[in-house]
Amino acid sequence: MSEKNIPYKIYLNEDELPKAWYNIRSDMKVKPAPLINPGTRQPMTAQELSQVFCDELVEQELDNTTPFIPIPDEIYKYYKMYRPSPLVRAYFLEDALGTPAKIYYKFEGNNTSGSHKLNSAIAQAYYAKKQGLRGITTETGAGQWGTALSMACAYFKLDCKVFMVKVSYEQKPFRREVMRTYGASVTPSPSMETEIGRKILAEYPNTTGSLGCAISEAVEVAVKSEGYRYVLGSVLNQVLLHQSVVGLETKVALDKYGIKPDIIIGCAGGGSNLGGLIAPFMGEKLRGEADYRIIAVEPASCPSFTRGKYVYDFCDTGKVTPLAKMYTLGSNFIPAPNHAGGLRYHGMSPILSQLYHDGYMEAVAVEQTSVFKAAEMFARSEGILPAPESSHAIKVAIDEALKCKETGEEKTIVFGLTGTGYFDLVAYEKYHNGEMTDYIPTDEELAKFFAQIPKQ
Amino acid sequence: MSEKNIPYKIYLNEDELPKAWYNIRSDMKVKPAPLINPGTRQPMTAQELSQVFCDELVEQELDNTTPFIPIPDEIYKYYKMYRPSPLVRAYFLEDALGTPAKIYYKFEGNNTSGSHKLNSAIAQAYYAKKQGLRGITTETGAGQWGTALSMACAYFKLDCKVFMVKVSYEQKPFRREVMRTYGASVTPSPSMETEIGRKILAEYPNTTGSLGCAISEAVEVAVKSEGYRYVLGSVLNQVLLHQSVVGLETKVALDKYGIKPDIIIGCAGGGSNLGGLIAPFMGEKLRGEADYRIIAVEPASCPSFTRGKYVYDFCDTGKVTPLAKMYTLGSNFIPAPNHAGGLRYHGMSPILSQLYHDGYMEAVAVEQTSVFKAAEMFARSEGILPAPESSHAIKVAIDEALKCKETGEEKTIVFGLTGTGYFDLVAYEKYHNGEMTDYIPTDEELAKFFAQIPKQ
Repeated sequence: MSEKNIPYKIYLNEDELPKAWYNIRSDMKVKPAPLINPGTRQPMTAQELSQVFCDELVEQELDNTTPFIPIPDEIYKYYKMYRPSPLVRAYFLEDALGTPAKIYYKFEGNNTSGSHKLNSAIAQAYYAKKQGLRGITTETGAGQWGTALSMACAYFKLDCKVFMVKVSYEQKPFRREVMRTYGASVTPSPSMETEIGRKILAEYPNTTGSLGCAISEAVEVAVKSEGYRYVLGSVLNQVLLHQSVVGLETKVALDKYGIKPDIIIGCAGGGSNLGGLIAPFMGEKLRGEADYRIIAVEPASCPSFTRGKYVYDFCDTGKVTPLAKMYTLGSNFIPAPNHAGGLRYHGMSPILSQLYHDGYMEAVAVEQTSVFKAAEMFARSEGILPAPESSHAIKVAIDEALKCKETGEEKTIVFGLTGTGYFDLVAYEKYHNGEMTDYIPTDEELAKFFAQIPKQ
Repeated sequence: MSEKNIPYKIYLNEDELPKAWYNIRSDMKVKPAPLINPGTRQPMTAQELSQVFCDELVEQELDNTTPFIPIPDEIYKYYKMYRPSPLVRAYFLEDALGTPAKIYYKFEGNNTSGSHKLNSAIAQAYYAKKQGLRGITTETGAGQWGTALSMACAYFKLDCKVFMVKVSYEQKPFRREVMRTYGASVTPSPSMETEIGRKILAEYPNTTGSLGCAISEAVEVAVKSEGYRYVLGSVLNQVLLHQSVVGLETKVALDKYGIKPDIIIGCAGGGSNLGGLIAPFMGEKLRGEADYRIIAVEPASCPSFTRGKYVYDFCDTGKVTPLAKMYTLGSNFIPAPNHAGGLRYHGMSPILSQLYHDGYMEAVAVEQTSVFKAAEMFARSEGILPAPESSHAIKVAIDEALKCKETGEEKTIVFGLTGTGYFDLVAYEKYHNGEMTDYIPTDEELAKFFAQIPKQ
């Protein structure tokens, strides 16, 4: 522990919590491509989007120019329940690695949702309440987003209907019970509650469900129910806007101690965590004020950035959503059954896709056994049991720190520790028992899914 | 939210973390009764105790006079990984209750053990390492203490053998996996690894185990293995000493804002949390410098304080431990099978027992359905999913705040939120499904267990 002046954890005061979200699009010379209507092939209008989404969120979704959007008081009040989150100096991990690198991580796991997802859930629930809605619907896979949304709906006294992929509903009863504690109704999908659910069940009575089907059910219920809208926890521009609070806090904490990162690392599924963490740093880079190496980490079994195509594709398997231009593996892509490490989305945030396409960031794909090995090392040295998703960033942070050990460089590495692994212990058990395997799809396998992407 | 000057969370700086533990015994006019040897009926000597416990911990166990014991640097370093813990002003709970009371809680759940247990685990592992031991053994029921100890042993690179009550081992595989992540070996008890385990299995091949049996196995392995000692997570004087860090931080945070509590509330199982939280406040009370209402909360189904006897009894069901003078229900007492709310220990810390006996604190027993109702209300307003144990304190804090609502008094209430309920969702599920029932043992039932207490 060389630098005694930097504490183990940097906690900002409550009045240092950012007062506005930062809209990275305002600094992008090439804006992310708009969502388009698959029928008309025209950009989705605000009116079209507001059938499904809350009005003010539609505005945020389409706003490519306003640099800062003030955080409303009611949202700020709830942010203070669990924010600012700590920026931790990984002294113990550095010691364990014997690296001269200085490692920091922004830890978003100290709230009951167990992740950064709450940052956007509170915002989306607030705007729904402000619009006078009765409730919101969403889908959830592993349950992190559903938990965050059920918490936010409890705060604003909104009805919350979560469609949970049936296999997760049955295998992760604990996530379901957390959501019920916050008053959400949780329905295994496919269900008999929707037309599309009944249709799928008639066709495939033994299906264990999919995220695509759950999205379709959630959207159907939102559109057909008086006073309901649908909300989504990642991918969308509005979500990255809300998540910018993560990066803004990180920057304030680093600036306070005069620390300038060399490398910033985040895991990438739909992109909400990575987009939020890097926002203000990427802004400086876009404006030519500073340079940073920015690395997105994804699973080798679901390699959207590193092996996907940058094209227009559906956001869901059921093809009920608009088309988004993004790095995609094809909306029918599902990671191999042995994949336990999260980050299983076939596409990627259009904002991050454009930035990656324009060369502002790198991407690397890692295999899950190496991710769990990094997770275990991290847990034993830093004390925190990380989520498998977050552990992708840990793995690459360790790799970069070990490179510094070889070269003797004292680089400053910052990564996002998005959440805790308390509900991922089935995956840890597989790892402990030596039952975890890796899988990398072949080019032929990927080609099959690419073939189903709509004609551009 | 009336008082804008008090933040939602009071975080101390790292340099405000207490440098010494406070030994409440130094201020007690009537000291807690010593442990006695059941064979000789004489107080246990340091030499006798050091067969089972680490040398320096034995010293702490027997030290009734030193007011402050410095926290060694190596322990302090690891405390800084997760301490100071926040003191939270429960603005949202106050609003939900409509009470003029000011409610604060000290939140110990933001570490992977999920509770305050880590405070003593780190200390005990450190002293074992310092003594040059190879490893330590312990028992765990639900797994909170076992998790904390496995984390501490990972930090100090000590072998950690946990005997986990078989029914918990099978029903709570996730706790087991957390311990394995930190490198502990976890053995379902009774096991074939010990004499007492083999004996019990021969007699009752289908037994699901008990804490008493797990203690016996852990002690046997510690005593018979070269370089091993046994450690315990509650009840003992040394554990309350380590946990005083909770109360000391609470006091520093309150003093910083000029807040003087009227009522201090903590849940009580073996007494480690309550004893730690109240320590410096009780010290002032014992020295006549201040007065506080101090309330211990226990489950109505395991009512050691409120219905137990203050006598010498065994600390374990297997009767391999010394005798401790404490409030006890009899060492054979096991709460009813419907009890899901934790705090199932038959006895109570000798320090707290003496203080309660001498009238320095109150105790109240509450039924578990009312505890889970309070837990749910707390989760929905304050965002944190509380452990069932901690929720006993929440229940009584709410009751006291509602009394203030009736009288209009603006009392300041402080309670200990010992941990999170992420691994207790089977109990929450029972509550959500309306399957949770209450149980209060009859006087006749208690009399049967009292009858087995050794003659005084």
